[in-house]
Amino acid sequence: LSTGKDFSSDNASGAAPEVLAALGRANGATAAAYGDDPCTAQLTERLSDLFEHELAVFPMFTGTAANALALSCLAPPFGAIFCHESAHIYTSECGAPEFYTGGAKLIGLPGAAARIDPAALSAGLAELGKGVTHHFQPAALSLTQATECGTLYSIEAIRRLTDIAHRADLKVHMDGARFANALAASGQTPAEASWKAGVDVLSLGLTKNGALAAEAVIFFDPTLAEDARFRQKRAGQVASKMRFVSAQLLAMVQDGQWLELAAHANQMGRRLGEGAAKLGIALAFPVDINEAFLELDRTVADRLRAQGFLFHPWTAEPKEGSCRYRFVTSFATEPDDVDGLVSTLARALG
Amino acid sequence: LSTGKDFSSDNASGAAPEVLAALGRANGATAAAYGDDPCTAQLTERLSDLFEHELAVFPMFTGTAANALALSCLAPPFGAIFCHESAHIYTSECGAPEFYTGGAKLIGLPGAAARIDPAALSAGLAELGKGVTHHFQPAALSLTQATECGTLYSIEAIRRLTDIAHRADLKVHMDGARFANALAASGQTPAEASWKAGVDVLSLGLTKNGALAAEAVIFFDPTLAEDARFRQKRAGQVASKMRFVSAQLLAMVQDGQWLELAAHANQMGRRLGEGAAKLGIALAFPVDINEAFLELDRTVADRLRAQGFLFHPWTAEPKEGSCRYRFVTSFATEPDDVDGLVSTLARALG
Amino acid sequence: LSTGKDFSSDNASGAAPEVLAALGRANGATAAAYGDDPCTAQLTERLSDLFEHELAVFPMFTGTAANALALSCLAPPFGAIFCHESAHIYTSECGAPEFYTGGAKLIGLPGAAARIDPAALSAGLAELGKGVTHHFQPAALSLTQATECGTLYSIEAIRRLTDIAHRADLKVHMDGARFANALAASGQTPAEASWKAGVDVLSLGLTKNGALAAEAVIFFDPTLAEDARFRQKRAGQVASKMRFVSAQLLAMVQDGQWLELAAHANQMGRRLGEGAAKLGIALAFPVDINEAFLELDRTVADRLRAQGFLFHPWTAEPKEGSCRYRFVTSFATEPDDVDGLVSTLARALG
Amino acid sequence: LSTGKDFSSDNASGAAPEVLAALGRANGATAAAYGDDPCTAQLTERLSDLFEHELAVFPMFTGTAANALALSCLAPPFGAIFCHESAHIYTSECGAPEFYTGGAKLIGLPGAAARIDPAALSAGLAELGKGVTHHFQPAALSLTQATECGTLYSIEAIRRLTDIAHRADLKVHMDGARFANALAASGQTPAEASWKAGVDVLSLGLTKNGALAAEAVIFFDPTLAEDARFRQKRAGQVASKMRFVSAQLLAMVQDGQWLELAAHANQMGRRLGEGAAKLGIALAFPVDINEAFLELDRTVADRLRAQGFLFHPWTAEPKEGSCRYRFVTSFATEPDDVDGLVSTLARALG
Repeated sequence: LSTGKDFSSDNASGAAPEVLAALGRANGATAAAYGDDPCTAQLTERLSDLFEHELAVFPMFTGTAANALALSCLAPPFGAIFCHESAHIYTSECGAPEFYTGGAKLIGLPGAAARIDPAALSAGLAELGKGVTHHFQPAALSLTQATECGTLYSIEAIRRLTDIAHRADLKVHMDGARFANALAASGQTPAEASWKAGVDVLSLGLTKNGALAAEAVIFFDPTLAEDARFRQKRAGQVASKMRFVSAQLLAMVQDGQWLELAAHANQMGRRLGEGAAKLGIALAFPVDINEAFLELDRTVADRLRAQGFLFHPWTAEPKEGSCRYRFVTSFATEPDDVDGLVSTLARALG
Repeated sequence: LSTGKDFSSDNASGAAPEVLAALGRANGATAAAYGDDPCTAQLTERLSDLFEHELAVFPMFTGTAANALALSCLAPPFGAIFCHESAHIYTSECGAPEFYTGGAKLIGLPGAAARIDPAALSAGLAELGKGVTHHFQPAALSLTQATECGTLYSIEAIRRLTDIAHRADLKVHMDGARFANALAASGQTPAEASWKAGVDVLSLGLTKNGALAAEAVIFFDPTLAEDARFRQKRAGQVASKMRFVSAQLLAMVQDGQWLELAAHANQMGRRLGEGAAKLGIALAFPVDINEAFLELDRTVADRLRAQGFLFHPWTAEPKEGSCRYRFVTSFATEPDDVDGLVSTLARALG
Repeated sequence: LSTGKDFSSDNASGAAPEVLAALGRANGATAAAYGDDPCTAQLTERLSDLFEHELAVFPMFTGTAANALALSCLAPPFGAIFCHESAHIYTSECGAPEFYTGGAKLIGLPGAAARIDPAALSAGLAELGKGVTHHFQPAALSLTQATECGTLYSIEAIRRLTDIAHRADLKVHMDGARFANALAASGQTPAEASWKAGVDVLSLGLTKNGALAAEAVIFFDPTLAEDARFRQKRAGQVASKMRFVSAQLLAMVQDGQWLELAAHANQMGRRLGEGAAKLGIALAFPVDINEAFLELDRTVADRLRAQGFLFHPWTAEPKEGSCRYRFVTSFATEPDDVDGLVSTLARALG
Repeated sequence: LSTGKDFSSDNASGAAPEVLAALGRANGATAAAYGDDPCTAQLTERLSDLFEHELAVFPMFTGTAANALALSCLAPPFGAIFCHESAHIYTSECGAPEFYTGGAKLIGLPGAAARIDPAALSAGLAELGKGVTHHFQPAALSLTQATECGTLYSIEAIRRLTDIAHRADLKVHMDGARFANALAASGQTPAEASWKAGVDVLSLGLTKNGALAAEAVIFFDPTLAEDARFRQKRAGQVASKMRFVSAQLLAMVQDGQWLELAAHANQMGRRLGEGAAKLGIALAFPVDINEAFLELDRTVADRLRAQGFLFHPWTAEPKEGSCRYRFVTSFATEPDDVDGLVSTLARALG
């Protein structure tokens, strides 16, 4: 009997019960459409408190749309957007940023463990040459926190990059698809992890965190947001019954639910990483949040799959030899799920 | 005490209980992300049965996105899309079709009661002149059924337009934001109302009908859909936890829920129209579905508002004199809500 | 023997000898590419003198590109651009403005003799409703001087429109494909006809006027031009050997050549109009510049064509009955050419 | 007295006398606008003979526009275009391909001497994964012949790349900004160097070669060109007096002028390379055409500049130490110009 669990992604999980309950509470009477409802107003207020800053908030359906909308407010069609070469916007959104911006260029920068190397950013800026008519014009920096490799930037590392960016008149976007995981792991406040570190716009992702489909673009500088609602509308991202998106977001951030769920997911990730390490398996990156990247022999991976476990290769999977595999835990992962994986791994290695 | 009800739009209502229940059922175990889940597969199968045709189905979050995605598969950037001059895509989507298509042109055509005049379509086609390099090239016709004025096209009227379109090599899109209302009112089958009448792509809207946020683009000709998933992805319209969008759609169409809810909304609309007519109020259009357009004096409208009733002027609201006001009922409108409106109207007129 | 002349358009003529001579003079030694050459610098200086204003000048290859580039600096992708419903940008550029702006909407306004009715502009602005998320946002007004019907706006008429526009925070573009004709006919100075009348950006067309392929976008407010050179580059409109475009423009404006050539073309237009009027032919519009619109019976038009004359119907040409035909003169039209047309017309009518 | 010559680029030269003479001949009588003139028809016929193939030809003003138009006919907005990481489309067109395609992605591949490494192309294709919704879809390969480093691909090398491309259903574009230089250097026929080697669309550049501003997009498969004229029009790249663009192109290709001028430029390039080599200067690449890349100490470069010589650093110019500098010859470069450079170099080195 195959009993393996699903570690393919945190978006393979469903929704947290609190989110579903909030949908029920948001239902009932009529409410003004397109975001003029009390729930959305309450969300903005709550986020403003949490982030200790005046905010312009745009509830969105997906992280891809949130990232692309944010970037379209920062970069003109002839703008260049610097990001890590493993960034989701660079590798996995089928050109959403290019679409929303009208053809801006993403420049993928190197850096260990999915963290942008500051020297690479400086070199990239120098190479473009601001004002050269033949070149895309430097417009924005996009950071991913936590990174695509499940690692964290330190506040100092972020500050180093945002300083370089701001000195070059770039605006700074943070892809926070796993922002709550970063907060839970680092103990930073939302403010410390965002605008205090030089972030101008944040894509706050709560879907992986436990919502059904709810993200928010948060502008810390409202002047950057002037175009946002028109761009959001023409992208088909303004929910008519927006209360149901806002209610999800509110349920998550209202009473610390987002951090609790993220902390649990992180704990499961560490449990998995530690279990694997004890078996002598190499971890490609430190397990800062809810993702563990294991170096496994292809035959071992196949044995796990035969037991029903789900997970993705991170690099091209060889016919023979070893490969880096990604295992993701979520708010819904149980300690037993992880322990089952580790013990199956132990058998598969043996 | 103000006790007036909200007739501003059918999207001011919340969600049908069956839809919320379906979300709960869809929750639970992990499922493949981005649409590779059993619920989405089941949806396609169910819709295929209902429409009696092979289909390519793309669950979407909003009607604006559904329309724009559909049109972007039918018209090149230099294409012309014919529609009624009151069509939602023409007046109310802040350029979503222009955005998704990369700059195609919408040509608004006249026609009584929001139904396109076939002669105007023919004239528009002749004026463009297919193959003239200086002109947008005729690409698509977009029909709205039920129309923006709450009226219905007869099957023959649709057929007349789609025949003209197909003879000119146009593809035909139907904006079905209130498709269920049209079916419920006409008694037509989904197939009769769509591909059998010459529709190539349907935006099936279920949000106004009772879902939280769930629409579907349905291609009756799969070859037209070849680009759709890439365009959908780069628009940020592919839900990672797509099962929750598909579950809403499935809950609506599975056991005829969509038609029951639409029939109720239509019945409330007719009750409202009949009540108003008995008071001697002129109806701008026949009340075919769940929308009634009343010709009211501005002072009468103000008295309704003072009682808490919500509704929108359809044409520019004058300082003095009469105006056309739109009242929309929904699956959640109660007979008492309508009766309360009618009796308040009676007093306001008196 | 067919001896009829070509009145199809002023762009059917070749180039003025002075322009070809200027190309020869511009040839020779090497020069910096992409506009950093002395000839382009001299052009900006000369135009600045002529227009009595600080300018940002962008030499372009075509009027379509000039219009589209100008508009892309005035309107965001979600912007609305008001123009006359007969404007070239609206009817004849296959969507260049939509392309360059990333999907802005052109709103065609009515008005007699191709002049925008100020009341229609005000109504259009009111209908859009600035700030309404569902609507394109008012961004620019585009005027054509001289108009597509060969008529002129008075300075007062322009002022009336630009005042409405500026009060609504619109920027004003002038399509000056026949700007020199307008100057020559009105006796206005370039400054009076442009920025003094409220024009922010001018597409100055000199190709129809006698150049090979040379137009200029002229910004009177350099802050509007900040993006222009990047947009121009990515449109493929920055000539590597730009001196040859600038040389054409300079040859035209340097010693009043543009006005002399335009005055001649206008004189030929009037001669044609007067000759036709004497034959009792109705003129659809006053002949203010080098275009005459004659109401002719289809059979008369056919007889002209049989003699080799070339000209276009302005409205759809009927099988039987009369139609409006456009006859355009140019710098190269000879009095004999016009007289030959008039005498052939006389015979054809007889 | 500074007497140094300009080796900054082949587009710093003016136009060949034959081209100016052809403009004079093309002038005179009226001609149909927008390409319906005899000269343009003759051009297509002549090119069809030269290339020994049925062709669709689009005369253009700039190489940037030619490349971008061609690519927009090969790649959808979600398409990936593979090219060398030093390709002009990748580094120097401010996003023209992204603009014309509506947001396609250019993927820069490595390879020695500006020639794409076939293994890198195969790896790039494998990484994208055709059909993966999250990824740009492989659409086109763009080759530059001669390359940006003044080197040539052999026919076999081109064939190797186009075979990989076609097997993966990519279309193949060739940026032929210096196509004539490649022909003159290799002795290949136009057909051998293009469609016989697997090229589907060629940007034929004749401006650097000796024209004022004249390029052509040549489709060997007319079905790929179906959209081209509409895209060309909305890009503002359809000359109203197109005969003057076509006349330039015709003057170049009619009697072998393009090859003679290119052969001369190449000879001057080799003379420069050989002269430099004799002085012991390292050449970064073989001098296959009219470009020589010299490794010079910054102080040597400064001495040349002090003598009035013009040339560009190819890599970032250091404060101290050596750098790679590009010297370009043209049809107008005289042997004395080269000899003067070489002797000044000798003194500067001494």
